Amino acid sequence: MSANRRKFLKQLGLVSGAVATGLPGFSNAIVSADDVEAKDGSGKRKQLHNMCGYATPKLERVRVGIIGLGMRGPGAVERLSFIENVDINGLCDKYPDRVTSAQNILTKAGLPKAKEYTGTEGWKAMCESNDIDVIYIATPWSLHTPMAVYAMNHGKHACVEVPAATTIDECWQLVETSEKTKLHCMMLENCCYDFFELLTLNMTRHGLFGELIHAEGAYIHNLLGLNFQKDGGYSDMWRLRENAKRNGNLYPTHGLGPVAQCLNINRGDQMDYLVSVSGVDFMMAAKAKELAAKDPFYNEFANQHYRGNMNTSIVKTMNGKTIMIQHDVTSPNPYSRIHLIKGTKGTACKYPSPERISFEDEQWLSPEQMKKMYDQYTPEIVKHVGEIAKKVGGHGGMDFLMDWRWVDCLRNGLAFDQDVYDAALWSCISPLSEQSVKNRGKSMDIPDFTRGAWKTNKPIETTLKGGATTLIRNQSESGGKQLDVH
Amino acid sequence: MSANRRKFLKQLGLVSGAVATGLPGFSNAIVSADDVEAKDGSGKRKQLHNMCGYATPKLERVRVGIIGLGMRGPGAVERLSFIENVDINGLCDKYPDRVTSAQNILTKAGLPKAKEYTGTEGWKAMCESNDIDVIYIATPWSLHTPMAVYAMNHGKHACVEVPAATTIDECWQLVETSEKTKLHCMMLENCCYDFFELLTLNMTRHGLFGELIHAEGAYIHNLLGLNFQKDGGYSDMWRLRENAKRNGNLYPTHGLGPVAQCLNINRGDQMDYLVSVSGVDFMMAAKAKELAAKDPFYNEFANQHYRGNMNTSIVKTMNGKTIMIQHDVTSPNPYSRIHLIKGTKGTACKYPSPERISFEDEQWLSPEQMKKMYDQYTPEIVKHVGEIAKKVGGHGGMDFLMDWRWVDCLRNGLAFDQDVYDAALWSCISPLSEQSVKNRGKSMDIPDFTRGAWKTNKPIETTLKGGATTLIRNQSESGGKQLDVH
Repeated sequence: MSANRRKFLKQLGLVSGAVATGLPGFSNAIVSADDVEAKDGSGKRKQLHNMCGYATPKLERVRVGIIGLGMRGPGAVERLSFIENVDINGLCDKYPDRVTSAQNILTKAGLPKAKEYTGTEGWKAMCESNDIDVIYIATPWSLHTPMAVYAMNHGKHACVEVPAATTIDECWQLVETSEKTKLHCMMLENCCYDFFELLTLNMTRHGLFGELIHAEGAYIHNLLGLNFQKDGGYSDMWRLRENAKRNGNLYPTHGLGPVAQCLNINRGDQMDYLVSVSGVDFMMAAKAKELAAKDPFYNEFANQHYRGNMNTSIVKTMNGKTIMIQHDVTSPNPYSRIHLIKGTKGTACKYPSPERISFEDEQWLSPEQMKKMYDQYTPEIVKHVGEIAKKVGGHGGMDFLMDWRWVDCLRNGLAFDQDVYDAALWSCISPLSEQSVKNRGKSMDIPDFTRGAWKTNKPIETTLKGGATTLIRNQSESGGKQLDVH
Repeated sequence: MSANRRKFLKQLGLVSGAVATGLPGFSNAIVSADDVEAKDGSGKRKQLHNMCGYATPKLERVRVGIIGLGMRGPGAVERLSFIENVDINGLCDKYPDRVTSAQNILTKAGLPKAKEYTGTEGWKAMCESNDIDVIYIATPWSLHTPMAVYAMNHGKHACVEVPAATTIDECWQLVETSEKTKLHCMMLENCCYDFFELLTLNMTRHGLFGELIHAEGAYIHNLLGLNFQKDGGYSDMWRLRENAKRNGNLYPTHGLGPVAQCLNINRGDQMDYLVSVSGVDFMMAAKAKELAAKDPFYNEFANQHYRGNMNTSIVKTMNGKTIMIQHDVTSPNPYSRIHLIKGTKGTACKYPSPERISFEDEQWLSPEQMKKMYDQYTPEIVKHVGEIAKKVGGHGGMDFLMDWRWVDCLRNGLAFDQDVYDAALWSCISPLSEQSVKNRGKSMDIPDFTRGAWKTNKPIETTLKGGATTLIRNQSESGGKQLDVH
């Protein structure tokens, strides 16, 4: 039994007596740690079931349980409260007061209270309940995979915050469990639903950039203050601890997801290998020292060795494209996810703002020309709920578009935009990056979680064929938000 | 004798009868090809003489001979014709008509004609002449090192276009020859003299960005049309041939030079290793095929295998900083050298324009705030000749600032801003990148051409201590350009 596997089982409380797991067929289904180094699992084992493009039966109502009501969960409760035919049947957090606060969101929206689950084991009880279809996971990173796997093994679809996994072993656990249970495992990569990202995805599909050559994404967001925040920040400073000890691109998916969709990764192209280089720490140790001088709470964080500030990684794809991905959550600089795509006929770039597009004349479009692009290539989903999404909020609307979309997919029996292979692949960049960084930027093979199916998988739809039947609730009558729509 | 060495000697016409070389001590001075893999030559051999910060005796007049009057040489002739106390004593090109055209530039400027050197061996005769102090080399890349080495070995300083060398072996040849002869070998990295680059270098020296963490540079410039141009382009399509067969970052120095100066590379920090990944070709083969269909001249270029379009490389430094460098000369996209520097207190970025600077509030400065930065931190050299440089021209003025600066250094007995270690290090990125690309982004150690001296070398000056005595000629009286200065 590998250390990772042991840790994973331990998290589930299964280190001894693994037979009585309540996880049907679990130990057979998941690959061993030995498999994770294989470039392409297809030589060793077959895909159990191709979850790419797979649609589960229509659900008239979508019953959701949400785990993690700290930083991200309450926003999800609020967003889902605006979507018709969604029943928020479970609210779960280690801390009861957080559950109480989330109940208030429901009450304000005029919705019935949800069942409450609390304590360290509450999430298991919720996953085991019979009145929930989807477990929505917004907990610390290390709990994402254990919870998603447990949810699927108990018959629930899993919608899991980014990153879905933190080790290669966890990535395979997600893939094998989703394939075995034929349940969706969607990573909640909200940036795929931001407006410029959707515009450029749609323009890519329409061939406006020609064949794509290169793409870039990033998570450049100074979280130094937030990560060191004692009260009202991340519980037990979990995010600081991740960033203190792990060296690599710990948070690749916001930048990577949208460009991976443009490049049809997992659906016509596949990642081949990556290299990754981090600088050393120039900010965190100084911050810890500064805080510890004023507050002994921070003594534990002072005089530690901190990982680097800035990571740059490069991915090469099987079709010969390159993707550059960056990560920096400690340096003082304006926010950026870059979102650059470059093809044989044009280029688009989101950051530094303003959003830019150029074609073969190599001139950035004027604001008027940009407006024309938006007029012509805004995808159906944005036309349908984009304005409402902006009113509901959540990172400017993208969070709502995302949640509305997976609800609508479930209600119409449509394949998800993001499947378990995306969750695994986009997340695996972190552990591979860490290993590359540790070895002077050593080239790391990237597992093919589709085990060869990428060659025939179809690109995702950017429009709403057959969907878009899901309506929005106006909460003004119950004292909630007035959306002026319907 | 290594293949590289053999090729090098062959280029000099020295494959047999190497004794009668006319290159004093040449074969002793240059390291063998076996040395090039050594991480740090200091273990094997000592630096012969530290050329970093080394000043040669003052020259009242600076006598220049220029080799290569095709694409870049004529501009150099014109720029130097504006600088007082410069004598253009030699003009050299394989093709006599180009020399004649360059003579016309001198005549128009009211200057005496220069001695003419033509044919394939003309450059050697010019290097051997007694009325020249500096050989200015603007020839195809493969000739840069042979000519610079030959020039130094015949007692001339060498100013050589970018890249100064195309193999690691050539890099060491430059270093060893400059050290042995105690003559300057400056790579003409003009982008180090562009206005925003000089501003940010000066601001870095003043600590406005804190300690630097990360930097980026690029050469993203669509040369597809120019490289395939039959007439009036690069002689015998040499640049197309380089770009067709070599896969990596072939032209790193424009992006790298300015940020390497900010990071004090070779002078307090040193490059440790790099990784490099290229995509495949999406543009060149198609262009060749398209042209060949209309013109049989291009048949030789059709149906070839072409290298990739887009290269991304990452350098890690000994002090734990990272540098990302990109190269793309075939895709249709707006020009960019990026020029991003990011430190513990702020960030600057040149491309995509407009130029941007931010500090700890993480907001890009307004145009008014940017003007204040220019008012306060424009370095002396720009105040002194910046406006004149814009009028003389050459990539917006930077070429003139560069040429004026090295002339002024020679006239005042000052160390050059760019020494042979910079020429070698910045250039060596190409061959190392090629090797990394060939091996799935393999991590490549970067030679320390200073052989340990980087630890104590002093950063370059951004102001003009003791210099700035070199005046500008107004040519209006002779029918040349009216500069309205003096």
